[in-house]
Amino acid sequence: MMPPRDPVAPADDDARALARDLLALPHAALSYLDAETAAPAISRIAFGRIAGDGLYTFVSALAPHSAGLRAHPACALLLGEPGSKGDPLTHPRLMIRARAVVVEPDAPQRPALRDAWLRQHPKAKLYIDFADFSFVKLVPVSALLNGGFARAYRIDPDDLLT
Amino acid sequence: MMPPRDPVAPADDDARALARDLLALPHAALSYLDAETAAPAISRIAFGRIAGDGLYTFVSALAPHSAGLRAHPACALLLGEPGSKGDPLTHPRLMIRARAVVVEPDAPQRPALRDAWLRQHPKAKLYIDFADFSFVKLVPVSALLNGGFARAYRIDPDDLLT
Repeated sequence: MMPPRDPVAPADDDARALARDLLALPHAALSYLDAETAAPAISRIAFGRIAGDGLYTFVSALAPHSAGLRAHPACALLLGEPGSKGDPLTHPRLMIRARAVVVEPDAPQRPALRDAWLRQHPKAKLYIDFADFSFVKLVPVSALLNGGFARAYRIDPDDLLT
Repeated sequence: MMPPRDPVAPADDDARALARDLLALPHAALSYLDAETAAPAISRIAFGRIAGDGLYTFVSALAPHSAGLRAHPACALLLGEPGSKGDPLTHPRLMIRARAVVVEPDAPQRPALRDAWLRQHPKAKLYIDFADFSFVKLVPVSALLNGGFARAYRIDPDDLLT
């Protein structure tokens, strides 16, 4: 299969539906900048799209990306994984460039966010109330869907949230 | 399951063996800097460890990470994917910080590299000789293995290559 050669197209309904499916995944790869060196770095993160609110991760202060996102809020997410069959580059994936905003522990929205997160990530109940864990909102700046069918689509950031 | 709380440990034989397994994967997530804005960005890439040589990807000049790596060689790789069961953050993954070096089409090592790549990525024969595709060597600077068993290990970059 050929990699995409067409220019990036605006999203149609099928592309938006595929993006929505990928946004339901509970984890993502995060591209961020190292807190001290500002070199590009990468981590796997827990991920959740909270309907009517936005995109979130939940991180330990001990994770290197926690310090990285606080020092350098610009980041990017990759959602979707190839599985074991076929050419990995033909499987759908969504790339989101975002800006990280840490939700402080006493933020008024935290209780509702905590409940919504636990509905999606029930195993997080073991550590969700630990003092060194924080929610981080990932405010999308732009998004690109590679549909796995030799075509790339630009997704409006607003379409990731509704 | 708890995220890792212990400090990062030096690799032992089990950790090195697990890292070697992850290095056999045919794809990775790449954290790189946008060619124009230097913002963190992310892509899925084809990946291959060529024994006795090094770590490589093979990219189209049309891919945004191709321009990114040429403009800003510092990058990072994530190998390993969670699969569908259990807590995604407990699955093993290897994070490698690296420096990208583009292999020019007339480089003397290209024919041997091409043959080794095709043995690992047979489907690449459809486009391996296209003029706008290049090999990029990913020279490891440091590596961290998260074993999925609540422990992180520092892997010597030399142990990724031998």
